[in-house]
Amino acid sequence: MSATTTEESLGTRIEQALRHRFSERSAAAERYGSEFVGLWRAAEEHALGGKLIRPRLLLDLAHALAPAPLTADETHSAIDVAAHVELLHFAFLLHDDVIDGDLMRRRRPNLIGTLVAERPAGPTEPALHWARSSAILLGDLLLSSAVLGFARASVSPEARERLLGLLEQTIFETVAGEHADVALSDGIIAPDLRTILSTSAYKTSTYSFVLPLRAAAVLTGSSDATEQRLALIGLHLGLAYQLQDDLLSVFGDPDEHGKDPFSDLREGKETAIIAYARMTSHWDGIELHFGRPDLSPADGADARERLRECGSEAFVRGLVQEHLDAADAALFEAEADALLPAAAGRALRTLASRVGGRSR
Amino acid sequence: MSATTTEESLGTRIEQALRHRFSERSAAAERYGSEFVGLWRAAEEHALGGKLIRPRLLLDLAHALAPAPLTADETHSAIDVAAHVELLHFAFLLHDDVIDGDLMRRRRPNLIGTLVAERPAGPTEPALHWARSSAILLGDLLLSSAVLGFARASVSPEARERLLGLLEQTIFETVAGEHADVALSDGIIAPDLRTILSTSAYKTSTYSFVLPLRAAAVLTGSSDATEQRLALIGLHLGLAYQLQDDLLSVFGDPDEHGKDPFSDLREGKETAIIAYARMTSHWDGIELHFGRPDLSPADGADARERLRECGSEAFVRGLVQEHLDAADAALFEAEADALLPAAAGRALRTLASRVGGRSR
Repeated sequence: MSATTTEESLGTRIEQALRHRFSERSAAAERYGSEFVGLWRAAEEHALGGKLIRPRLLLDLAHALAPAPLTADETHSAIDVAAHVELLHFAFLLHDDVIDGDLMRRRRPNLIGTLVAERPAGPTEPALHWARSSAILLGDLLLSSAVLGFARASVSPEARERLLGLLEQTIFETVAGEHADVALSDGIIAPDLRTILSTSAYKTSTYSFVLPLRAAAVLTGSSDATEQRLALIGLHLGLAYQLQDDLLSVFGDPDEHGKDPFSDLREGKETAIIAYARMTSHWDGIELHFGRPDLSPADGADARERLRECGSEAFVRGLVQEHLDAADAALFEAEADALLPAAAGRALRTLASRVGGRSR
Repeated sequence: MSATTTEESLGTRIEQALRHRFSERSAAAERYGSEFVGLWRAAEEHALGGKLIRPRLLLDLAHALAPAPLTADETHSAIDVAAHVELLHFAFLLHDDVIDGDLMRRRRPNLIGTLVAERPAGPTEPALHWARSSAILLGDLLLSSAVLGFARASVSPEARERLLGLLEQTIFETVAGEHADVALSDGIIAPDLRTILSTSAYKTSTYSFVLPLRAAAVLTGSSDATEQRLALIGLHLGLAYQLQDDLLSVFGDPDEHGKDPFSDLREGKETAIIAYARMTSHWDGIELHFGRPDLSPADGADARERLRECGSEAFVRGLVQEHLDAADAALFEAEADALLPAAAGRALRTLASRVGGRSR
């Protein structure tokens, strides 16, 4: 089987696991009325539209770390845990969209936007309340499903204990990051560069990169030392990924990345790009445009040009490279200490080159 | 040891378990900044202010169902599970308050109200956003803590499987009830009596009564048959409790129950009292006052009088009695089928008489 076929079939199996989970829940929802069934149907549609980055990463690494090819049972358990990582991701997205007041994600209606559009009267206050409350409640169900999925993983009691500890720490840190992000956007804490970088790490790296890598280590019975090195590599790759994301939102080609070209500027999102710009003499000219919901394309282009001129773009590109280098160094060291099999090194280098070279 | 001393010492031990959990989390929060620590401190203060009805019920029944006195280890496990039931309750309250837009609970600021009051500028939009977002995030942490607590209960693998299945069903049904409640308040489904009663059962009975009783059955190794009878008894007692609560809010003495005397009317809360009134010729006169945030005490008193005259009060009192009778019949039958030890029958009758006779 070629690598591509394997990847495709893994993607299909993750999707099948998720689809199975959702149809079982939709069936259970039936006794509670058509609105509740409708919520689950909408959830399935939105949850299955993703690229499955996190569960794919987990499975890739599990295959690469395993001392012998995974048995059918082991593959099944890994797919199951991976699917629950995706549910956790979707739960976080839902609550994130409620908190941010977003109705769109990547230029398409998110679950909240879909529920609002279904109301005959359009985006009235009750329709928005209904859609946001539904997203809070669905997020609660998916979050608890994710924890239950880890609790029921078909692994040894020791592995389950490790998985539960990992998940607990992941949720705690991700929520701490989200909380700091809200504090930044509501002006409760100062948007200095250090705070913004740690917030990104907590909010994104921890569950999107560190969790899949560490879970793969646990599922393959890897040592604590291997797990810790993978955590460090995941932290750096996650930060590089998030900083790339910030760069693409402002400087990238919207036709490629699929986001609103100036949405970060309109929303006044506190990113590393902005934190750097604040420390330069160009800030006054940028601040005029920052956080203005009615930002015109011309003003957006002007702000972007100023962010380039003040050195923010170059600075953040430098940061991306630093974190890619740090990930590479940690990987090299882990290999030197015989903590990673060759296949895992290859998988992580492929991942790092994707993070570094991505355009969407 | 007298019954009172035992009850007090159980209450103290539940509180200690909760306090231990919160101080451990507050300590873990420190590396994420003072706002996150502040959130945990506020959470501890609010979570420990309750009457611990649910964990006490669980422990009472566990003692009453156990074939032999619980060992120290068994008591410890039961207290641990009971404390996690309380965390689940607090998580639901937090998200409920976000959804309802409430800043108060029982005439005192709730967690959201406390966080708003701490902001120097007062209840501005960013302060409200900050407080509500914090409540969503804290609810997420407590919900996942509750599931993790059940997953780590120090019980046999079979008992853990039963506990996890019970918790999954409980969360699913409670959220379904909350979702239907939002649909009622946003005018998405019709407020007929049947919908309102099933919504109450799902939203309140399931986690406040059925969960503690069934968890006690699992923890004492009781049979599935006993667990199912307890579920039925809990369902009826929970409905009687909720209907009493609705009656007290409208017709009770605010100095005793501690709520705003006309808050249900002001908020336009769809209760069984209102559903009955809608079917009578008195409704037009009541509708004038229903759901008016500026309802005056005089108009409130007028609405209350009309709800009495139209027969709503008597009707709902009748419903309370029906559910108490149904609980009693189910209890009697369970005893006749030798599914409940005498001590459990006594504990449940004490509970039923408290539900029936309560004034706050």
